Amino acid sequence: MNGAQALLKTLADAGIEVFFSNPGTSEMHLVHAIGETEKVRSVLCLFEGVATGAADGYGRMADKPAVSLLHVGCGLSNGMANLHNARKAHSPIVNLVGNHATWHQQYDAPLTTDVPAHARVCSDWVGVSESADTLSADGAAAVHVSLKGSGKIATLIVPANHAWEETERVSKAAAKPSFPKVSDSVLEEVADLLSNGRRTGLVLGGRALRADALEVAGRISEATGASLICETFPVRLQRGMGRVPVNRIPYFAEKGVAFFSEYEQLILVGGRVPVAFFAYPGKPSLLAPDDCLVKPLASVDEDVMAALTSLADRLDAANAPVVRQQAVVFDFPCGRLTAETIGQSVSMLLPENAIIADEGITSSQPVYIATQGAAAHDWLAITGGAIGIGLPLALGAAVACPARKVVALQADGSAMYTLQALWTMAREKTDVTAVIFNNRSYAILNMELARVGAGRPNDKTLSMLDLGNPDLDWVQLSEGMGVPASRVTSAEAFHLAFEAAMQTKGPRLIEAVIAQDLGSIFG
Amino acid sequence: MNGAQALLKTLADAGIEVFFSNPGTSEMHLVHAIGETEKVRSVLCLFEGVATGAADGYGRMADKPAVSLLHVGCGLSNGMANLHNARKAHSPIVNLVGNHATWHQQYDAPLTTDVPAHARVCSDWVGVSESADTLSADGAAAVHVSLKGSGKIATLIVPANHAWEETERVSKAAAKPSFPKVSDSVLEEVADLLSNGRRTGLVLGGRALRADALEVAGRISEATGASLICETFPVRLQRGMGRVPVNRIPYFAEKGVAFFSEYEQLILVGGRVPVAFFAYPGKPSLLAPDDCLVKPLASVDEDVMAALTSLADRLDAANAPVVRQQAVVFDFPCGRLTAETIGQSVSMLLPENAIIADEGITSSQPVYIATQGAAAHDWLAITGGAIGIGLPLALGAAVACPARKVVALQADGSAMYTLQALWTMAREKTDVTAVIFNNRSYAILNMELARVGAGRPNDKTLSMLDLGNPDLDWVQLSEGMGVPASRVTSAEAFHLAFEAAMQTKGPRLIEAVIAQDLGSIFG
Repeated sequence: MNGAQALLKTLADAGIEVFFSNPGTSEMHLVHAIGETEKVRSVLCLFEGVATGAADGYGRMADKPAVSLLHVGCGLSNGMANLHNARKAHSPIVNLVGNHATWHQQYDAPLTTDVPAHARVCSDWVGVSESADTLSADGAAAVHVSLKGSGKIATLIVPANHAWEETERVSKAAAKPSFPKVSDSVLEEVADLLSNGRRTGLVLGGRALRADALEVAGRISEATGASLICETFPVRLQRGMGRVPVNRIPYFAEKGVAFFSEYEQLILVGGRVPVAFFAYPGKPSLLAPDDCLVKPLASVDEDVMAALTSLADRLDAANAPVVRQQAVVFDFPCGRLTAETIGQSVSMLLPENAIIADEGITSSQPVYIATQGAAAHDWLAITGGAIGIGLPLALGAAVACPARKVVALQADGSAMYTLQALWTMAREKTDVTAVIFNNRSYAILNMELARVGAGRPNDKTLSMLDLGNPDLDWVQLSEGMGVPASRVTSAEAFHLAFEAAMQTKGPRLIEAVIAQDLGSIFG
Repeated sequence: MNGAQALLKTLADAGIEVFFSNPGTSEMHLVHAIGETEKVRSVLCLFEGVATGAADGYGRMADKPAVSLLHVGCGLSNGMANLHNARKAHSPIVNLVGNHATWHQQYDAPLTTDVPAHARVCSDWVGVSESADTLSADGAAAVHVSLKGSGKIATLIVPANHAWEETERVSKAAAKPSFPKVSDSVLEEVADLLSNGRRTGLVLGGRALRADALEVAGRISEATGASLICETFPVRLQRGMGRVPVNRIPYFAEKGVAFFSEYEQLILVGGRVPVAFFAYPGKPSLLAPDDCLVKPLASVDEDVMAALTSLADRLDAANAPVVRQQAVVFDFPCGRLTAETIGQSVSMLLPENAIIADEGITSSQPVYIATQGAAAHDWLAITGGAIGIGLPLALGAAVACPARKVVALQADGSAMYTLQALWTMAREKTDVTAVIFNNRSYAILNMELARVGAGRPNDKTLSMLDLGNPDLDWVQLSEGMGVPASRVTSAEAFHLAFEAAMQTKGPRLIEAVIAQDLGSIFG
């Protein structure tokens, strides 16, 4: 048995079922060992950002890690942006990164880099195997770390000779780490705050946005009058008809400030101190009023569910009624195709228990609003702001949950960063419907350009934010990678195309050509 | 005037003419200032790896930096793999990377990362502006550093408020750094070695592979009997009919060892100690025999041309004759389409002074061999082994040299990493003909899998190296981004398509479907 084979035995024992792979020469023994291991599935990705983004989607839905298999430092750097998103999503991920054989690293061959330095930029934990004999135990440690708290990014670097050298050492999987509990004193303090009559918001993030936690939060809200506030970019928000609704923090700083202006105290429940996404000249970074008290109940890495349950008990709210989201009824949308009409169609047609992967950027919010009363679903957002997560996220969610329909709401500009995900969707026959909002523009940047007060832009400046010369043809791009696609330009046509997609299993893409009115931004 | 405007004045004064841009909100004032600056051109790229790879191609051809404009740490990480290639190519590049406003960095907003830590992984020099007042001088310093030696990667991080705050400080461009000269004692020592009658090779790299330096090296070779050896992946090799030919070091380790077995001494002239690309079980990393003397004449960062000229004088070789490459005549290729027939067509049809950007991987070597007697041209290779450089490299070379035809020799698997470059080629109407070698496989990995001795692969293992399910349709992918394309499956059809492409200005893509016989590898 070689080191790679020992490692695979341990990873399989630790419950690893899926590799998102983009290997190179230094990972060939790992590839061979994966091929031999019946319990694991390898999903080939044609770019590393697809592999890491898919691992994020898998981790959010499965609550356990997939492995991303990457080739040396350069492969890891291609996956780094989506690892940033995954880290902000507290996803459990194990990255296996090959490196040159130990004795080869001194020679500065073309692909030689400081791989641990790459890894430290994007990981919560970095390990480098010391020999074939330690590789299996290192793998067990990586899986263990990845499961700490809500989830961590664990990167194990494997010199090629450790994979190919002989060993007899196979480690057992480590025990799953336990969720730290919140102390009684914190619970008591928060219970007191919730009873003091001040205007209070519960800032919910991480696993506090799952249906079970929202049920308890909803009872606390009913019993105390506190509002339920959802972070702007939720990791995984379980919402829709019958679920407990939440108020999402607006994206733009000034709207965020207005949103929080009435609050006297905020309780953080898996959520963080609300801050603006970007700084703007003359605008504040912190969204809550200066005199608003901010009190953490539980961090994202603590047992949020247990904390909410104990808090509800202390507040005698365990049996309080909860407000549930009602259905919202729309007419069949018609006329001009907009993000609003798309939202109406999605809301009407989304099947029960679907997953929405959202990287719609400027087109996202209208769909979010329209779908509040859609059939119950999970909403996954771009947590770290690094664009290019949407299609990979949908891919990973679909691999984790093959029985559920996945809808990717995808802006055109962002889609271009990791469009290679479509090929893997075709190969794996994942049940993903990708909706491309084609406004032929980095629309968000046109808005931001106006907002940062850089002055009136000339044509050369605007051309740097314009995707319309030439137009991207998403039907060709999609079919070029094996995903059937269609283009729609009216609300009716979108509705019919989306309806067909919801009734058919397998990947498909709908290019929704929506008009963008920049005049209203700069007018 | 704000900091961004001051910076742009200095960059234009320092000779910066081109930005390869993929900006975000924190770069909006830079975008605005670029728009206002008549002397600079902004080339929009839809993925950061395209921007940095294009900056590499530009730097190799222009011998001065372009600027890559990138968005915070995550944008930089997307450009990192091609910056690795650029660093190994000793290309001059200035990266301008925006960051959050200084006061905003403490709040850990979604896109917050340690941007300098990102930058250190992929840069020779990292600067962070301290205020709007320093920004212009920081830009001058970045350009200065980028021009040291053969070229350096200089990364300047710009907090958004330094771009938007007012300043009156505009710095002049710094003087161009001088090329360090080689000492007389080294020249004397090398001249002695070249006169001692031992079997000697000159290992040429960096600028020693330009036509003028090869002329001098050719005279030294004639006068002393030393061979001219070219690094496996040359930065920019000027070759073809009338040029001084060189012997390229083979890619595979065992072939490299055989190549060097006869040498008793190697003189490094901009080249490095020859090492294997990867380590393999039981094979050496160093290619030269243990008892072979290796003596550096000039590093890539020293004045190689001056060193060669002085050396030729000492050896009385200044007027020695040189062997020049003769034309090689081929018949019109016909029948099955292979890398060999493609090489013949390219050799017959390549116009004078063309540029070849080579990421053909397994298909590259036959074309390289066939084109040795083609019309004089520049050959740019993948210097750092990070795949995804080919199309961006061609784009950047075409922007630097608009009067020259650029041919991208591009493997299918590698092309997928940065296929977004095609859109920018269409937008900028660059004169690039991309030839996609579509063998529907990571063919190199199939070869490496056999070579590393991991054992006979099963179907699951092979599927991890197979791009054929589904087939990528490069005609659709190309036309989806606005580049006219055609697919050919015979030698005759390729010849005609390539001939038409050579006779027409503007971007186009030829998908060359070539068969791959894996039986011969695993047989």
